[in-house]
Amino acid sequence: MSKLVECVPNFSEGRRTEVIDAIVAEVRKVDGIKLLDAKSDPSHNRTVVTFVGEPQAAKRAAFNACAKAAELIDMEKHKGEHPRVGATDVIPFVPVSNVTMEECIQLADELGREIGEQLAIPVYLYEAAAKLPSRVKLPDVRKGEYEGLKTEIEKPERRPDYGPARMHPTAGATVVGARQFLIAYNINLNTSDVAIAKKIANCIREARGGYKYCRAMGIMLEDRNIAQVTINMVDYTGTPLHRVFETVKSEAARYGVSVVGSEIVGMLPLQALVDAADFYLQLEGFSRKQIFEENLG
Amino acid sequence: MSKLVECVPNFSEGRRTEVIDAIVAEVRKVDGIKLLDAKSDPSHNRTVVTFVGEPQAAKRAAFNACAKAAELIDMEKHKGEHPRVGATDVIPFVPVSNVTMEECIQLADELGREIGEQLAIPVYLYEAAAKLPSRVKLPDVRKGEYEGLKTEIEKPERRPDYGPARMHPTAGATVVGARQFLIAYNINLNTSDVAIAKKIANCIREARGGYKYCRAMGIMLEDRNIAQVTINMVDYTGTPLHRVFETVKSEAARYGVSVVGSEIVGMLPLQALVDAADFYLQLEGFSRKQIFEENLG
Repeated sequence: MSKLVECVPNFSEGRRTEVIDAIVAEVRKVDGIKLLDAKSDPSHNRTVVTFVGEPQAAKRAAFNACAKAAELIDMEKHKGEHPRVGATDVIPFVPVSNVTMEECIQLADELGREIGEQLAIPVYLYEAAAKLPSRVKLPDVRKGEYEGLKTEIEKPERRPDYGPARMHPTAGATVVGARQFLIAYNINLNTSDVAIAKKIANCIREARGGYKYCRAMGIMLEDRNIAQVTINMVDYTGTPLHRVFETVKSEAARYGVSVVGSEIVGMLPLQALVDAADFYLQLEGFSRKQIFEENLG
Repeated sequence: MSKLVECVPNFSEGRRTEVIDAIVAEVRKVDGIKLLDAKSDPSHNRTVVTFVGEPQAAKRAAFNACAKAAELIDMEKHKGEHPRVGATDVIPFVPVSNVTMEECIQLADELGREIGEQLAIPVYLYEAAAKLPSRVKLPDVRKGEYEGLKTEIEKPERRPDYGPARMHPTAGATVVGARQFLIAYNINLNTSDVAIAKKIANCIREARGGYKYCRAMGIMLEDRNIAQVTINMVDYTGTPLHRVFETVKSEAARYGVSVVGSEIVGMLPLQALVDAADFYLQLEGFSRKQIFEENLG
C-alpha cells in the first residue's frame, strides 16, 4: 500500500487565468501527483489547489508551485477579501493513507526549510507542525496580513521559523503545516425551532465545553423548515462522527426532538466511515485489510 | 472507476503442484488480472483460486485456466473427499466494483457458451445465472458427482445449458455462475449457554423463517466460555449486516443476554461497511464518491 498525503495550497491569485494555469501546471507535471481540484475565487482573488501523492512527490509539487507563484505574483499589488500573507499563502499537508500525522509534520518541516533557504521566503509552521503554541492557529500567524507582517516581521515574536526575517520582495511570507482531514457534517432535527439546534450545538462544540475537535452552530434550513446542527469535524481521529451523532441524538431527546438524518458535505476519509461501522457493529479485531477492495491496489 | 469482478474457480487437483502451478499461471498471465489467492487441499484434492479483474479479462483468465485443467486433469482418475463433476468444477463470478449482478450473470452466460462450444465441455449455469430453478443450488447441479452425472447427462432434466450432452473424456463437466460476495460474520454473546445462541440463530436463519440471505447456527467458543451465533451472509445487499446484528441484539435481550461484539471472518466488500455506517448515522443522500480514497484510482 502506497503512502498518500493530501496537500491543499492556497495561492493569492484568483483572477489572471494564465498565472493560475502556470501554478497548477507545476503541480501536474510532478510524477505520481494526482490533481483533484483547483478552485479560483475572483473576489477573494485566491485559488485553492487540492492534490494527492506520495509524501516526497507532494513536497516537490508544493515547492515548485510555490516557486512559480513567487515569480508570477506580486504581493505589493495584490488585493482581495480573504486574509493572506504571501503569494503562496498557506500549504497544509493532510494524512490520507498509510501516513501518520507525525510524517506530515516532518514533511511540513522539510518543505518549510526548503522554501526558506532556497526561495528566501520567510516561513511559519502552523497547526500540528507549529513549533510555538502561539502559531497553532492560522489567524494568529496571519495577524495584520501581508501589510502588517511586513512591518512586524523583525520583532522577536514574529520572526519566521525558516528563511530570512524580512518579507520576500514579491512573494511575502508562507505558512506551512499539517492538519487532519476536515469533515463538514450536518445533523438534521425534526423541529422548526432553531433555538434547540443552537442549544445542541453548544453542547458539542469545544468552545462551550464540548468535544475538542468539534466546531458547531445551529441554523435553520428554510426550504425544509427544519433546524440543523452544522458541524466542522476538525480531527475525526480524536472526535469521531458517531460520538457526536449519538450526543446530538441524546441531547435532542431531552427536548422531545429526534434526528431526521445526517449529511456528509463533500468528502471524508474512508477511515471515518469504517470507524462508525466498527463502533455500531461492535467489531472485534477488525483490520482495514479485511476490506476486499483494499487488497486490489 | 474501473469495473471489477471477482472470480473463484475450483479445480479438481490439490496434490500435483506442477499441475496446480500450470493452471494458476494461465490466470496470472492475463493482462489486468490480479491473483489474490490459490489454496490447495490435498485431502479434498482440490484447489480454489481467487482473482479479480475487469469482466472480459476475468472471463479470459477463467477460460484459459479451464482449458489448461482439461488438458492436465483426468476425471477418470480423480479421487477426493469434496463433491465435484469436472476438472474445472465450478466457476462463480462475484460483483465487486461498479458491476451489477446482471453483468455477472451475462458474463457467466458468455463463459458457459464458450467453454461448451470451444472446449466441448458440458456446462451448467447455477445460482443467479441459473436458467432453471432446479439448477440454482450447487449441490443439486452436482448430484451424483462426476460418476453419476456421466450416466445421467443424456436425461432431459440433466442436459447441460451449453456444450454437448456427454461428459468431456478427461474434463467431465463444469458449473458456471454468478453469486454475491459471501461474508462470514459472527456475533458473540455474554452467556455461556449455547442453547440461547441456537435459539437466536433460528430466529435469523432463512430455513426457520428468518432472513432470506442468512445461514446461521449457535456454537460454543470454548476458549472464551461464551456462546456465538455464527453466520454466513450470502447476499449482504439483500440482508445487510446491521439488520442481522440489531435482530440478534433484540432477541438476545429477551433472554437477558447482551452482545459482546461481532467479528468479520476474512474479507468483506467495502459497500457492506458503508451500508452499516449509512444506516447508523442515518445519512442523507450519501454517495461512494464522497469517500476521498474513491477518487484516487
